[in-house]
Amino acid sequence: MLDLDTLKDLAVETPSKIVLLVFDGLGGLPDLHTGKTELETARKPNLDRLADEGVCGFIDPVSPGITPGSGPGHLSLFGYDPVRYLVGRGVLEALGVDFDLKGGDVAARCNFCTVDVNGVVIDRRAGRIPTEKNAELCAKLRHIKIQGVEVFVLPGKEHRFAVIFRGKGLGGEVADTDPQKTGLSPKQAIALASGSAKMAAIVNDFVAKARTVLSDSHPANMILFRGISQRPNLPQMSDVFKLNPAAIATYPMYRGLARLVGMNILGTGTTFADELDTLAENWAHHDFFYIHLKYTDSAGEDGDFARKVRVIEEADAVLPKLIDLRPDVLVVTGDHSTPALLKGHSWHPVPILLHSQYCRTDQAKEFSEKACTVGGLGRIRGTDIMPLAMANALKLEKFGA
Amino acid sequence: MLDLDTLKDLAVETPSKIVLLVFDGLGGLPDLHTGKTELETARKPNLDRLADEGVCGFIDPVSPGITPGSGPGHLSLFGYDPVRYLVGRGVLEALGVDFDLKGGDVAARCNFCTVDVNGVVIDRRAGRIPTEKNAELCAKLRHIKIQGVEVFVLPGKEHRFAVIFRGKGLGGEVADTDPQKTGLSPKQAIALASGSAKMAAIVNDFVAKARTVLSDSHPANMILFRGISQRPNLPQMSDVFKLNPAAIATYPMYRGLARLVGMNILGTGTTFADELDTLAENWAHHDFFYIHLKYTDSAGEDGDFARKVRVIEEADAVLPKLIDLRPDVLVVTGDHSTPALLKGHSWHPVPILLHSQYCRTDQAKEFSEKACTVGGLGRIRGTDIMPLAMANALKLEKFGA
Repeated sequence: MLDLDTLKDLAVETPSKIVLLVFDGLGGLPDLHTGKTELETARKPNLDRLADEGVCGFIDPVSPGITPGSGPGHLSLFGYDPVRYLVGRGVLEALGVDFDLKGGDVAARCNFCTVDVNGVVIDRRAGRIPTEKNAELCAKLRHIKIQGVEVFVLPGKEHRFAVIFRGKGLGGEVADTDPQKTGLSPKQAIALASGSAKMAAIVNDFVAKARTVLSDSHPANMILFRGISQRPNLPQMSDVFKLNPAAIATYPMYRGLARLVGMNILGTGTTFADELDTLAENWAHHDFFYIHLKYTDSAGEDGDFARKVRVIEEADAVLPKLIDLRPDVLVVTGDHSTPALLKGHSWHPVPILLHSQYCRTDQAKEFSEKACTVGGLGRIRGTDIMPLAMANALKLEKFGA
Repeated sequence: MLDLDTLKDLAVETPSKIVLLVFDGLGGLPDLHTGKTELETARKPNLDRLADEGVCGFIDPVSPGITPGSGPGHLSLFGYDPVRYLVGRGVLEALGVDFDLKGGDVAARCNFCTVDVNGVVIDRRAGRIPTEKNAELCAKLRHIKIQGVEVFVLPGKEHRFAVIFRGKGLGGEVADTDPQKTGLSPKQAIALASGSAKMAAIVNDFVAKARTVLSDSHPANMILFRGISQRPNLPQMSDVFKLNPAAIATYPMYRGLARLVGMNILGTGTTFADELDTLAENWAHHDFFYIHLKYTDSAGEDGDFARKVRVIEEADAVLPKLIDLRPDVLVVTGDHSTPALLKGHSWHPVPILLHSQYCRTDQAKEFSEKACTVGGLGRIRGTDIMPLAMANALKLEKFGA
């Protein structure tokens, strides 16, 4: 694809509307008995009609053979090279608890752990303490003061929590303090780049104070830092694509990823129908909508083929709420495949359909992995989606004379 | 594809086994009478069944429209960007005579030529002297001593031979001494980069001494240097892909290319059946096997359509020796196309089939150019093969969180 600076020169603001509908983990693998994937098994007349009228194909969110995490998968869909624009694990963790990261913030995902009298880690997860205990200990850690830095401590589930540091001159290039196995002491935080020396010192200061605070909280008497990373400064969609973009997602991590590229986050309920109601209510106010459906991925991760089929069928049934709004361009795809057979993200290319008045339709008569192999889009990169959607919305000018 | 450093971070060692079977020059063009390519004409039930069960498509070893030499074609198959990692002609020549190049070695392909009393080249190939005469003259050249440098002189066919220089501080950026046409004197060797000045001086020293040695060997009374190049320092497959790779090839050049990326070279016979016996004997000792079949290319180069068909059929007939070993991932493709119609390498994308438990099968029911156009792999780069093979062998972790 073109670099974002060049795309920015071509993008124009128009009244046309684009909807990017992301079924998380959409792509699948055939059931061993029926030979059909989840998408091929589902009864989904609306998606099939859109595929018939539209143009289909496959995307590689990163590149062939590469299994994307949710971060790279989504950045690619949003038009950002996922290899160039990295989102660290700590940042994702903070986004996942709906924390509104500011530019320069450094985030880490942390574990409560157990150390013996010599300071040696004997349980990296502190016996998976109850989530309520976690919240109680995080409240204690919040009393820790670090000179010149604001610290946020956010409880997660069991032994997991997130810490965010806000201040001037921080850097995200700091190695984990987690020794990765028991029988070793937690490591000192070490800066991996010169600009992160201050941050490493702050982490060490925080850990030392946490150890004191937690001294009588056995088994959760120590903490480990992992995935220390700084919020990336991504070009904003309003600037690059001249869009006024909005995100509708029931899970915080996806709202967070959308926030990183400057989308306006719309409040919504918990079901896909709720999301589409939110879409309808806000239809007049934005020209780009990203809608995220989580449950296809959750079912795939659980290895529940039938549930993934059902999620697709139920989403299809309420899809007329979206179709009736008549977006100029509708893209339906996923951020990666999550075949129930593999119980996790996979490298398989993800089916995509693009529906617009100008899309040059093809021989794909339904929305499925099989049909997409004869689709007119062929096999493209995830980062090609935004330029294609923009073009079909007549929002991209000619490149060169 | 991702850069090798990123791939290296994702690669994990597992017991699963990958076989990369390369039919040299596999792709073809339709016979003018039957309208079928060599692959479409051949009776090959085993390859067809693998294609039916697997996923098919096309690769461009370099990029669309580019006809690859054997070096770039193979580096691409091995996962190395063939534009970034160049293998010089002299290096290929040395590999082609099975010379074990070490890091830093500089190799050249040379001609015996004829010069007149004024030193002007009157025959660039010395009348294509007999190969036995060549060997005899190379034995003489071996007596030449160069201060601080070890010199290897390896006879080839007719007027061709190879020279390898081994020593400290050599460089491969030296222009040819071949004037390219008769009526001119051989050129002085000139360094094209500052680090190659010593090398240029050594070449000139060697040529001057060779002229003396050959003074009474008319018509082979002088030599020309071409394709001077240094052995590239390629990242090793064991390091990048965490594989313990082995190569099975009857032709030395392909063993040499495999050696450059760190494969263990297995001794083998001369037929494809011999190669598959070697595979079976070494099955327990490696997790990656590259197998090279030369004769498809040779038949294509000779413009012998029927022989290329026969080579494919004969290979297919012994393929059960390989299939019965049940590799976790089997890839069958070529390093380029060699249509009998063109009597040489061509730019046409090369059919590929990938067979694994997790490959997401497609509508390609046989292995042919026609079937590959509806294959689920679409049209990918040669460098995508290794990530895809690794992914299908469950040897690649997720990229990003």
